[in-house]
Amino acid sequence: MGSTLGNSLKTSLFGESHGEAVGTVIDGFPAGIKVDETFIDAEMARRAPGGNFATPRKEKDAYRILSGVLNGITTGAPICCIIENTNQRSSDYQTLLSMPRPSHADFTGALRYNGFNDQRGGGHFSGRLTAPLVFAGSLCKLYLAQKGIHIGAHLKSVGTIQDDSFNEGQLNPELFKHLAKKELAFLRNDSEEKAKSEIQNRQSEGDSVGGVVECATIGVRAGLGNPFFETVESKIAAIIFAIPGVKGVEFGEGFSIAQMLGSTANDVFCLKDNQVYPETNKNGGCLGGITTGAPIIFRAAFKPTASIEKSQFTLNVTTGYKEELKVEGRHDPCIAVRAVPVVEAACAIVITDMILEGAGYDRS
Amino acid sequence: MGSTLGNSLKTSLFGESHGEAVGTVIDGFPAGIKVDETFIDAEMARRAPGGNFATPRKEKDAYRILSGVLNGITTGAPICCIIENTNQRSSDYQTLLSMPRPSHADFTGALRYNGFNDQRGGGHFSGRLTAPLVFAGSLCKLYLAQKGIHIGAHLKSVGTIQDDSFNEGQLNPELFKHLAKKELAFLRNDSEEKAKSEIQNRQSEGDSVGGVVECATIGVRAGLGNPFFETVESKIAAIIFAIPGVKGVEFGEGFSIAQMLGSTANDVFCLKDNQVYPETNKNGGCLGGITTGAPIIFRAAFKPTASIEKSQFTLNVTTGYKEELKVEGRHDPCIAVRAVPVVEAACAIVITDMILEGAGYDRS
Amino acid sequence: MGSTLGNSLKTSLFGESHGEAVGTVIDGFPAGIKVDETFIDAEMARRAPGGNFATPRKEKDAYRILSGVLNGITTGAPICCIIENTNQRSSDYQTLLSMPRPSHADFTGALRYNGFNDQRGGGHFSGRLTAPLVFAGSLCKLYLAQKGIHIGAHLKSVGTIQDDSFNEGQLNPELFKHLAKKELAFLRNDSEEKAKSEIQNRQSEGDSVGGVVECATIGVRAGLGNPFFETVESKIAAIIFAIPGVKGVEFGEGFSIAQMLGSTANDVFCLKDNQVYPETNKNGGCLGGITTGAPIIFRAAFKPTASIEKSQFTLNVTTGYKEELKVEGRHDPCIAVRAVPVVEAACAIVITDMILEGAGYDRS
Amino acid sequence: MGSTLGNSLKTSLFGESHGEAVGTVIDGFPAGIKVDETFIDAEMARRAPGGNFATPRKEKDAYRILSGVLNGITTGAPICCIIENTNQRSSDYQTLLSMPRPSHADFTGALRYNGFNDQRGGGHFSGRLTAPLVFAGSLCKLYLAQKGIHIGAHLKSVGTIQDDSFNEGQLNPELFKHLAKKELAFLRNDSEEKAKSEIQNRQSEGDSVGGVVECATIGVRAGLGNPFFETVESKIAAIIFAIPGVKGVEFGEGFSIAQMLGSTANDVFCLKDNQVYPETNKNGGCLGGITTGAPIIFRAAFKPTASIEKSQFTLNVTTGYKEELKVEGRHDPCIAVRAVPVVEAACAIVITDMILEGAGYDRS
Repeated sequence: MGSTLGNSLKTSLFGESHGEAVGTVIDGFPAGIKVDETFIDAEMARRAPGGNFATPRKEKDAYRILSGVLNGITTGAPICCIIENTNQRSSDYQTLLSMPRPSHADFTGALRYNGFNDQRGGGHFSGRLTAPLVFAGSLCKLYLAQKGIHIGAHLKSVGTIQDDSFNEGQLNPELFKHLAKKELAFLRNDSEEKAKSEIQNRQSEGDSVGGVVECATIGVRAGLGNPFFETVESKIAAIIFAIPGVKGVEFGEGFSIAQMLGSTANDVFCLKDNQVYPETNKNGGCLGGITTGAPIIFRAAFKPTASIEKSQFTLNVTTGYKEELKVEGRHDPCIAVRAVPVVEAACAIVITDMILEGAGYDRS
Repeated sequence: MGSTLGNSLKTSLFGESHGEAVGTVIDGFPAGIKVDETFIDAEMARRAPGGNFATPRKEKDAYRILSGVLNGITTGAPICCIIENTNQRSSDYQTLLSMPRPSHADFTGALRYNGFNDQRGGGHFSGRLTAPLVFAGSLCKLYLAQKGIHIGAHLKSVGTIQDDSFNEGQLNPELFKHLAKKELAFLRNDSEEKAKSEIQNRQSEGDSVGGVVECATIGVRAGLGNPFFETVESKIAAIIFAIPGVKGVEFGEGFSIAQMLGSTANDVFCLKDNQVYPETNKNGGCLGGITTGAPIIFRAAFKPTASIEKSQFTLNVTTGYKEELKVEGRHDPCIAVRAVPVVEAACAIVITDMILEGAGYDRS
Repeated sequence: MGSTLGNSLKTSLFGESHGEAVGTVIDGFPAGIKVDETFIDAEMARRAPGGNFATPRKEKDAYRILSGVLNGITTGAPICCIIENTNQRSSDYQTLLSMPRPSHADFTGALRYNGFNDQRGGGHFSGRLTAPLVFAGSLCKLYLAQKGIHIGAHLKSVGTIQDDSFNEGQLNPELFKHLAKKELAFLRNDSEEKAKSEIQNRQSEGDSVGGVVECATIGVRAGLGNPFFETVESKIAAIIFAIPGVKGVEFGEGFSIAQMLGSTANDVFCLKDNQVYPETNKNGGCLGGITTGAPIIFRAAFKPTASIEKSQFTLNVTTGYKEELKVEGRHDPCIAVRAVPVVEAACAIVITDMILEGAGYDRS
Repeated sequence: MGSTLGNSLKTSLFGESHGEAVGTVIDGFPAGIKVDETFIDAEMARRAPGGNFATPRKEKDAYRILSGVLNGITTGAPICCIIENTNQRSSDYQTLLSMPRPSHADFTGALRYNGFNDQRGGGHFSGRLTAPLVFAGSLCKLYLAQKGIHIGAHLKSVGTIQDDSFNEGQLNPELFKHLAKKELAFLRNDSEEKAKSEIQNRQSEGDSVGGVVECATIGVRAGLGNPFFETVESKIAAIIFAIPGVKGVEFGEGFSIAQMLGSTANDVFCLKDNQVYPETNKNGGCLGGITTGAPIIFRAAFKPTASIEKSQFTLNVTTGYKEELKVEGRHDPCIAVRAVPVVEAACAIVITDMILEGAGYDRS
């Protein structure tokens, strides 16, 4: 299992990197939402490969909606969307069958599925599965926008290059649109330039870099979510850890709050627009697992791309000896770059589920 | 909702801090497991208040098993366990109704439940709900121990005082037992002493400190878990973010992996005891959401206790003005201290669910 | 597993017939509902043993609410209710360990739980578990009544004695109250008298009789439910088949519709109170798995009580020979009689879940 | 929601009758199962339209597997299968928008989805969705056959024409194969001939007939299933009531057991092949919700096809007046005929889920 998530909105992923198609089924999505293809195309393009800082693989992420949409409007029935695979180069991966790539799922997948898993290009474990995730997320963003809810993310860091953190006062849909158009989604232009150099330098060495994505959701009213097993944090963290390469998730001040004192970490309440509101947002928009009305802020740490051209050693499971491995093929030098819209999409899916759970299908 | 978690093992929490009882129902727990009360008592005692570094509230966490156990052996039927509340001092909380405590769920809970939530002592949001979680986790530990799986945790930091990280080579059940008996669960005695001072100093100022708990699970075989929405990381993160006060979760190298290069971050495979095994464990025991056979290592960041005696300001929602607030009552100066067994318990619940689920796909 | 049910409202059962207690946890129940104990007591009394047509066992079904209710009002947190067992006579069941009772779960339960199941009085399989189900259902009825939704049931048959079917025009809350007070819940008094004789005659022979319960839900608006796996019928049937002894469930015309023609089976639409409404209700209130606004009508077939004093043969699993068995102890001569409020309760739980799924927690 | 079902095996349906495609995603299906296309084709053909006793609509139910299968072997990843729609004649349905067809989901679907549902050919409510269900079921049958489990069904009745009931002693895979090849799946040839006449006569009148399908599952070991909310009966009934047109489900003696006495209804245990086994099978293979090892026998009542050419009246929702309606288009005269493989498929899905889940509690 593992391919289905959600309560009121159930999102399902299927497909393999080098199979016929990847896709998603989204069940419980509200009826009556206009499917803005221009917006969805733009979202898909943000994640798609190509450009200077991503794998040059020329997949065309052309999606095809098979169900749940009539005359451009959602019908309330499950929405199936597929993206057919057209540009596989399976030969790149032939030698990997006996030599599991370090930090990839080749080895664990083979154990999990008794050797029957499709290993070509990572198969079902491939980052390519994030394409349908972005499709699902872009639909959710269209729904959320109608509710005045907007989601945006940027690269908090690439390798050792740091960006500013989101400044709560400046969060707005225009900033998110601006970031979505950047080659690297940095708030600071100088950091963006440094990050470009960092990525290019490492890539030229056949190496890769990691990064941190920071995501903000604005416009969610206070009072959504649940205590304990379905806190807002639990639900967001679960889907973010589903994105290949994520090794950490933190909300608000995150790990640094552990070094603060109660007197400095507490978010004092004030009145804002005649509503109770936390004056600061060190808790990242949730208290007791429930939204405070402040922006929901979290960061996700992405490891450096595991596939590198640089020579490394790995076990040849056939011979039992370590051998040199250079992962050929076309790989992103920094998966965090293309992960920005994926993180937003994943967040949009969870927020939509949360809204629908709070409101039912009646009201949506 | 939010009180039920799991697939093959369903764990449910109920109760309020100052109500009749808190408790848990555990459904799907294997039949035939001996309920070792000495062990469970010891686990409950680790979490219970009292001692120098915890709230002096003298709750007696006496649990009562109502079902699912016959003659000290689990029957396979749902196990209900309750812990009756005997020592409530609700008067402490009277003034909070109009003045929501900063960084507490008083405000969000009231919105979520239209003002009907039990606010006494935090009600259902109280850390007291972690007592039945520890009960459930201790049962799971008994089951896991039969499979050679052991879980232990320590305080990676308290405030600014750092402990060593777990050293994979030294992880074993004896170390976990040793840590479980310490006043503060530090690996380094010198750090423990410094942390004691830190806590006492802050407490004497009416303030509180945060901390980071690091948890290791050893003995889990490679090949358990799922890609995407039910990765090992997703499942563990979801339950850890259910523990009150957690603001971050990271696996293996966690956030620092984002600053590493592919060539240094990759875990190269080797042969160990004739099995494929990652030579290093920067991924914290999971690849592609599936166990590698290496220890599952994660860290959880706990914020400083939000309830502090030190004067702070908060909104009086009745008057609309900010007023000074001193949270009276008995509070832990550092919730991370008592959270150590809670983190272990939460992890044990997820690992048990994963093992039980795995028997299905193993055998098919 | 198997003890938890529902999406927006999660109901969990635990306990054994001769253990410490039976009980339920209800999660997702709306906040702000007044817990009318007089009503709940009356519902519990309808199911409780005693009287002329039920087992004379004097269980006192005194329930104790442990959580989720404050000052008589639901808080939105999980509601745990327990009913402690006070009057066990386990000795009645001693010989059954080696001689599984025909048509009981002694044999299947022992296989399912590797012999560790609590066999005393049927353990977790006991009809006694329907007591907490009635508690949960009575809470749901209180919620539904606020929405103008009422549920009532009667004995469509006891053995070969038939009652009238519900006449849609006469369905109203008063009729349901009237039926709830009857010794046997028949619409026709003459049938009731005949059924009493039938039960008493069979009981005096040490035998038992079956029966059919017909249940009606009125006041549910059109448009609730789902196509396919969560049709109204699927959800109701699933919970009704959870009640011990049920062997059949049918909606509207049920099995007899299979002998009708399309032209006679179709429910033609008309206008009623200016709303589209089916003129007849052969489909029992649902089309395509979704409510039509007409009463939801279904029937459940109960087998005769499996425990009979009359001599029967069963296998002595120790000796491998068949031996005579007389099931001593106190048993209902017709479980359908006390099942009437259980069927209503089960239906109330599903309808509440359905309403909440449609409306969310916001609106409830 | 409503399109996803199962615990260890999650089956999802999507698509509309006159949209691009219908399909299914099956998650959790075991890796390593050979996908026997000859068998799947034959199963699909059993359900497909055409022939003398089904709608002449020439849909070609050509399925396309998009994921989860590599070189004809399942990989363990989610299996997506689509069946593209090629022969829609939407004009048939144009007038129905203002005149909801009696006993169809046109009206309830429009309410449920605020008028945005795809009404063409019933949209997502169409019986055409049973094509992917049969695909999923045929995969499950391949898996189950490896475990020695076989599922077969026949028409217990068509209109008033009765067939024999399954005779437990004669149940075997060969009988199921024999039935699968018949034009109408009757055990008795004389009944089959009468049923053919009955169907043809009613069809020539523009009318339709109902029917009852009886299904048997053989080879399931004793001890699978759960008490209460996930009894074998609950799970089977839930999926069977998801099939369009089903109005009743009964197990073993079903509704007639309600007229039996305990002494005649009880299944006495005996030894068979040195195992405890019920000598009779009036409970249909389950006790306490758990399998007894005897065949699992149930019947499903199908209503007559709601779409009839014969003139009937329905409300014109635009004018508010009743008007004559003749449902044009191509319709089955008896949906029960083609429902036989659908019932088997639905049962296969549930049994597979149960087996996979069972491996967990078996082994623990």
